[in-house]
Amino acid sequence: MYTAPLRALIDELGRLPGVGPKSAQRMAFHLLRVPTEDALRLADAIVAVKERTTLCTRCFNVAEGGGMCAVCSDERRDVTVTCVVEDPRDIVAVERTGQFKGRYHVLQGALNPLEGVGPEQLRVKELLQRVDEEGTEEVILCTNPNLEWEATAMYLAKLLTPFGFRVTKLASGLPVGGDLEYADELTLGRALEGRRELDA
Amino acid sequence: MYTAPLRALIDELGRLPGVGPKSAQRMAFHLLRVPTEDALRLADAIVAVKERTTLCTRCFNVAEGGGMCAVCSDERRDVTVTCVVEDPRDIVAVERTGQFKGRYHVLQGALNPLEGVGPEQLRVKELLQRVDEEGTEEVILCTNPNLEWEATAMYLAKLLTPFGFRVTKLASGLPVGGDLEYADELTLGRALEGRRELDA
Repeated sequence: MYTAPLRALIDELGRLPGVGPKSAQRMAFHLLRVPTEDALRLADAIVAVKERTTLCTRCFNVAEGGGMCAVCSDERRDVTVTCVVEDPRDIVAVERTGQFKGRYHVLQGALNPLEGVGPEQLRVKELLQRVDEEGTEEVILCTNPNLEWEATAMYLAKLLTPFGFRVTKLASGLPVGGDLEYADELTLGRALEGRRELDA
Repeated sequence: MYTAPLRALIDELGRLPGVGPKSAQRMAFHLLRVPTEDALRLADAIVAVKERTTLCTRCFNVAEGGGMCAVCSDERRDVTVTCVVEDPRDIVAVERTGQFKGRYHVLQGALNPLEGVGPEQLRVKELLQRVDEEGTEEVILCTNPNLEWEATAMYLAKLLTPFGFRVTKLASGLPVGGDLEYADELTLGRALEGRRELDA
């Protein structure tokens, strides 16, 4: 029913995360309908990302042209604080808060023995080398609040503590704007556990 | 926070229908992570669709290489019945029923005076020419059940009736597996209006 190129495009679009067969079809017909230059801009953007994106030589964030990423090249960043994240996307989230002035280290994943992801698959060695060389005073383990990451954080904490600087992790608790009534018991438990004094 | 190529890719993905900023970001990072050949297959598929897809010279369905589409080139199809649809995607839907053996005519849109879509923007002239030349016995107006399409169907019916062949439209009513209780009043009204004798 479809022509071969259309079939191929629907298949390829369907491999994108969160895209089912119906959405892939809708996107393919959209690309068919728009002016050729608009569709080719998407094709070119894909090619450009694959050709020009490299990993930062220091922190493994995404970078351009084989050098350091925008954060690492920024001399105003605090070199004594390093925020360890799983994925470059987490950097975008932290940057958006505007509250972190240090630098990052992207592990490129979380420990997951069942899927064969051990410390060697992550950028752990590079992290240890960095904190040893860079005069680090604090490492923030910016972990996603899930089991895999808790395990990764515990593992890293064990390796990092002997260096003698602060090793911290993000606070767990109720999201701002959240509702006590609808909070799950784990989150509420964490919020209780991490309760803080009020400055009166 | 993003590199320029990544920013551009997120922008382009965000133009696809149904893709918000979050999904676009997720897709872009997915493309960044997969092997280059996988990402380039998507880019190539887009280029191929734009380069190789043409409109069928008879019915304006999608076709390859400037000739007729798969349906029109199939000599087993019944040439006396023509199903008029808005969009090539509708052909896919009708073909999936396996119940239609005739040929199609793709209008490439529906009448919409407010958006400047009049009969000249649609393939109406070509439809009239076809039914005049092809020994047509029935035209099925395979309309989406909405107001724009009702108007388009009425307009076409007025033009087609003088030719003297049957002009039909799809039955409106309860979807199979639907629930009377949850049917909207318009649909239920149509179902009543179009009620049929039971063969006992």
